[in-house]
Order: sequence, then structure tokens, then C-alpha cells
Amino acid sequence: MTFEVTILGSSSATPIFNRNPTSQVLNINERLYLIDCGEGTQQQMLRYDIKASRIDHILISHLHGDHYLGLVGLLSSMHLNGRKKPVILVCPAPLKEIIDLQLHYSETELQFPLEYIFTDAERAAVVIVNSDVIIETIPLDHRIACTGFLFKEKKRLRKLIKEKIEGLNISVAYYSILKKGGDYTDENGVVYKNEDLTIDSAEPKTYVYCSDTMYNESYFAQISNATLLYHEATFLNDMLDRAVITHHTTALQAGEIALKTNSKKLLIGHFSARYRTLDELLNEAQSVFPATELAIEGKTFAIE
Amino acid sequence: MTFEVTILGSSSATPIFNRNPTSQVLNINERLYLIDCGEGTQQQMLRYDIKASRIDHILISHLHGDHYLGLVGLLSSMHLNGRKKPVILVCPAPLKEIIDLQLHYSETELQFPLEYIFTDAERAAVVIVNSDVIIETIPLDHRIACTGFLFKEKKRLRKLIKEKIEGLNISVAYYSILKKGGDYTDENGVVYKNEDLTIDSAEPKTYVYCSDTMYNESYFAQISNATLLYHEATFLNDMLDRAVITHHTTALQAGEIALKTNSKKLLIGHFSARYRTLDELLNEAQSVFPATELAIEGKTFAIE
Repeated sequence: MTFEVTILGSSSATPIFNRNPTSQVLNINERLYLIDCGEGTQQQMLRYDIKASRIDHILISHLHGDHYLGLVGLLSSMHLNGRKKPVILVCPAPLKEIIDLQLHYSETELQFPLEYIFTDAERAAVVIVNSDVIIETIPLDHRIACTGFLFKEKKRLRKLIKEKIEGLNISVAYYSILKKGGDYTDENGVVYKNEDLTIDSAEPKTYVYCSDTMYNESYFAQISNATLLYHEATFLNDMLDRAVITHHTTALQAGEIALKTNSKKLLIGHFSARYRTLDELLNEAQSVFPATELAIEGKTFAIE
Repeated sequence: MTFEVTILGSSSATPIFNRNPTSQVLNINERLYLIDCGEGTQQQMLRYDIKASRIDHILISHLHGDHYLGLVGLLSSMHLNGRKKPVILVCPAPLKEIIDLQLHYSETELQFPLEYIFTDAERAAVVIVNSDVIIETIPLDHRIACTGFLFKEKKRLRKLIKEKIEGLNISVAYYSILKKGGDYTDENGVVYKNEDLTIDSAEPKTYVYCSDTMYNESYFAQISNATLLYHEATFLNDMLDRAVITHHTTALQAGEIALKTNSKKLLIGHFSARYRTLDELLNEAQSVFPATELAIEGKTFAIE
């Protein structure tokens, strides 16, 4: 199953040429989930050939402009391009008011259903469950209400051990019972234990998105054992004071969080415009957690 | 006096890679006026080295997103970059409600005064007068309330004819009276007519901005004799039906408007995303009005 994230924007609020505000596209089994939608996300989607028609879910972490100002434009374009199928928008409740007001004054009535699931930054909650994924909100610690998102693959069915099945001449009709964990009883009443005929599927992989937040151990338990942890790393650690005041994280802290939560891999982003190059941020995070990469725009990271 | 316009965005609402929604920067005597502010305007300003700190006036034609969705991001960046001096925003009144709502939910209190001048799409009005320019709104014919803008240089003072002045030994203290059109009377009571001592300054130049609108002669009188007319030309004339339905103009019509209003030069923009290249639009407008150019992004046009 495809499980990968493509970075569309990597900068924090102050603009910098050639880095865009936050947005990512998560591909889970060929369904696309857009995470945050900073200004210019549409241009970035065109640049990296991400089709808006393939996005059915949009998740917005919080209402600072660098995380949602591209949304009304994207919804308008979906409308202009004749979209009919629904968009599910997971977001803080006031975003509905902001969108409705702008559609009202532009006299636009969307030609597709826009369905809202409101987040609560006070407590974690499951917001989406489908055949591919379970999505939970993660209460973060930012200046305004903000949630991260945890994407956990649905546990797959058990896998049949081909040679064993064929040897027993089990009918195909029985396969789905075996895959779900049932034992097999043959025509003579002999019981074959499920664990002898099947093997467990791979442990579900998880993608964790934490932006924007300051270092706060309150969310560590929820995000532990991530296959891939995306964590904001706005500043170098020599600006820790500034990070605390603005409720952001340093690259060193992001490395520490990956380490403490037993993440397999760390991706850092949301870089301050003061850093023209990003090597120092990468080095700092890697000094604590070597398996770190930079969230470079246009790059796709497999979650594996 | 500098009088020139730089194009930041040239596309209509549906996005297309490498063309941006509408925005222009007008430089009048080294003061910058931003006209419309589509999504991505900040990135375009960075690309073409337009400093936000030099912009004191922003004018928004109407509340379709491709003309204003970059504004809240730009204002937020001005705030983050420590701006203290006022921004004067000329716009439809509901834009204040849209901005206030978004600043409210992001818990942003701008550190500079944002002063509004509301436009009325029903009647032309002078909205700005300063030492360089007089700015009028132009009621246009679009699907929602929309005004263009007419920028007219302030008439300069008369110019002294140096040889005549020196010959009469006129004191410097008298120069400002002569420049304003007064006669000169010498110590013997001899009167020298102003027109013998000064010459008129150049006729004020005008820049006319018409987007978005359909062809409608109601605004022709107001925009006549433009030094440079910017007019939208969303479609080729084979899509005239679509232009009428969506209240836009074709390239052929834009040429006709420039001709009928006796414009010196025409600049066309607001191109539909269906046109990957723009030559046909240019050729069509030039077939009626040869002095036409394309509003190419990054290009600066002198108003002369």
C-alpha cells in the first residue's frame, strides 16, 4: 500500500523567496490527504503535479494564516473546475465562518458539498476512519488552538501461508475466515489452528504531523513509535528563548522529541525565513537523532 | 517624475503554473501603490524585489478571491516585520469584515494603523489626493461590485523661462508666485504677463486600471485619453458568449475600448488559464489597436 508524504511548503510565517508556507500531501493507498494549506499551495500543487481532483480530505492544524490562507483559493478552483464530489474538511470550527464569509461576498455557491469535522485542541480525538487509515488529532502547545494529526494505517488482514493452505486443499470460500483469524476444521473434524495456516500482517505504520507547537511532553505518549515523525523546527537552539516566546520548537528539541518518542525517522520543517540555508538546522537535529531529514519542497518521503 | 507599473500577476481565477492571479505595483514619484493582491503576491514581490515597506496604499477592485486572497498574508507579514507606519486600504467595505475576522481568530493585533477608504461601485469618486496623484474609482460592470482605478498625475507648476527671469533680475522670493501663474510687476510698476515669463508644465499623464469588467460604454468617458490603459482581456473573441456570461472582456474588445477611448497605449492581462501561450490574445488586440502589449509578470511599463 502506498504511504508517502510530499512536501509543498516548508517555511514559517514570514515569507522568503522560493520557500512556501506549510502544506503537505499525504498519499495513503492512492487517496490524497492535504495537510495544511498555506498561501500558494495551488501553485505548488501545479508545480509538483498534484491533482486537486484527487484530494478528498483537507486537514487544517490551526488558524495562523501561514497554515490556511491558500484554502479559499483552492476550494474556489475546485468549484471553477466543476468538482461535484465532497471535500471533507477537518479544522478548527471558526474556519467555517471565515470560508462562509468569503464565499458570501464573492457570491460563490460551491457546486460540491463541503463537509466539516471540527477539531478540539483540548483533547485528542479520532476524526476519520476508513478502510485505509485512522486519523487522530493531537493537541499541541501553540499560541492559539492547534492540533497535529496522527495517521495510522488500518491493520491489514492476516496473510495465508500458501503451501499450508494448498496442502490441506482448503476451499477459496474459507480464505476470508482464515485472514480474519479463524481456525479451520476439515471434513473429518480435525481443527487446524489459525496461527499454523496464516501469518500476522505487518505492524501498521504511522505518520505523525506536529506543527505548530513548542516542546511539551504532554503529546509524547500519543505520538510514540512513529514510523515517520514530521515535527516543526522553526529555530536553531541558540534562539530557544524566541522559540519559547513564540511557542515554536528548535531543531535540537525536534531531535530530542524524536528520540524520546522512539520515532523511526524524523522530518523537520517550518523553517524561519532567517535561515537562507538549512544545513545547520539539519546538523543540529541529527546531533541528537541521526535519522533526520529536511522537509524539502517537492520531495516525497516514503513512510516505511 | 517616475510613473511606471510593474506586473506581479496576470492570470484570471483558475490557477495555471507560472502565472499568478492579479496584482500590480504602481510607482508614482517613488511611492508604491499596490493594485489588487491575489494569492502569491508576496512571493512575486520577493521575486521582483518590491519591498513591502515601500507600499503605503493598497487598492482592491473587488471581492473575487483572485484579486484579494494574498492580502491578509501580506498585512500579517508587514506586522511580523515590525511595520509601524499606516497602510491605506481602498476597497469594498466588506473586506474590512473579512480581514477583521481572520485577524481575530489568529489573535493578531496589527502593530500599524490600517486605514480604510471604502469604494462605491455605483458611482465614480476621488479616493486619494496627494502631492503626486489624484486617484478616482471607475464603476465597472462585473458579476459583483467592482471598481477600476484612474491614476492622474497632479498638474505640475509652470516652469520659469530662465533667460527672461534673469534678464529682469526678478528676486528668488517671487518665483513661486510666477510658477503658480501670477504676473510680475517691477519697481517701476511695469507689468510682465505670466505667459511671457513661464511655460506650462506637461499635460498630466494617466494610468487607467480596468479589471474585472465586461465591455460597457458607461465607463468610456471617464477613462478617455489614458496615457496607458490596462484592461482585462480574459478570452479570445471566439469565446465572446462566455465573456458575456462571466462578465469579462475579450482581447478584441479590449483593443476596441482602447481605440474608442483614445488611449495612447494598451496593456492587456487577466488571461484565462486555457491559454498556455498569449500570442493569439496579443495579435487579436493589436488587430484593432496596434499599440498593445501583454501584461507579462515581472515586466515594468513606463507611463509616458
